[in-house]
Amino acid sequence: MLEDIDHVGIAVSDLDASVERYRKAFGVEPVHRETVEHQGVEEVLFKVGTSYVQLLRALGPDTPVGRFLERRGEGVHHVGYRVTDIRAALTRLRDEGLPLVDEEPRPGSRGTTVAFVHPIGLDGVLIELVQEP
Amino acid sequence: MLEDIDHVGIAVSDLDASVERYRKAFGVEPVHRETVEHQGVEEVLFKVGTSYVQLLRALGPDTPVGRFLERRGEGVHHVGYRVTDIRAALTRLRDEGLPLVDEEPRPGSRGTTVAFVHPIGLDGVLIELVQEP
Repeated sequence: MLEDIDHVGIAVSDLDASVERYRKAFGVEPVHRETVEHQGVEEVLFKVGTSYVQLLRALGPDTPVGRFLERRGEGVHHVGYRVTDIRAALTRLRDEGLPLVDEEPRPGSRGTTVAFVHPIGLDGVLIELVQEP
Repeated sequence: MLEDIDHVGIAVSDLDASVERYRKAFGVEPVHRETVEHQGVEEVLFKVGTSYVQLLRALGPDTPVGRFLERRGEGVHHVGYRVTDIRAALTRLRDEGLPLVDEEPRPGSRGTTVAFVHPIGLDGVLIELVQEP
């Protein structure tokens, strides 16, 4: 069911400063930048092997990432797993009794289809399922 | 410098219960289990694509993961990146002014060589560099 780690999503306060830090420290270059209004974030992706590192800026304080930053400060916000069939994956997790954030898949960045699974069922880790276009 | 995401390390309170949850929810099977005394953890690894998901149990309250659990509760403890030359990577990060936890590489699990980079320099994310055997 899990094909790979798609990305690690990191909430940051100053996106441009963090992008510069990653570029300089790790020698990586951004491969994608996108504002996802309905998720309340602007994201920058770095390709690392078969996965991405995703830096996330909140579009405002009253967004999921904004509230995360207020509550916990900068850090890992969620882990994204690549799946081939997001509907089948959601059905399986629902059948296993895991609380879902998204009962139905919805559009993510890069043309992906995504769904979040609640951290309460998974050791405090917010999980995002990602099906590529 | 960063070859891939080696693993996502997740601090959990009840390792066996979490392993069972991952097995049932995601249909993954543990590929490795090891106690790393000098890091104060017992770990279980699941292979996901080219990376691992690492569940971590603290061997006691006065360990890095024990203190993390006390302070923040369960959740993502660190992100591990695979590198081919850990000494060169450490030198680069030191030259870029990033605070290091480990000035010298040391033995990790699975026969790897590892070094931690302090979260203060990287948006609150504790980074582990991992060189495979």
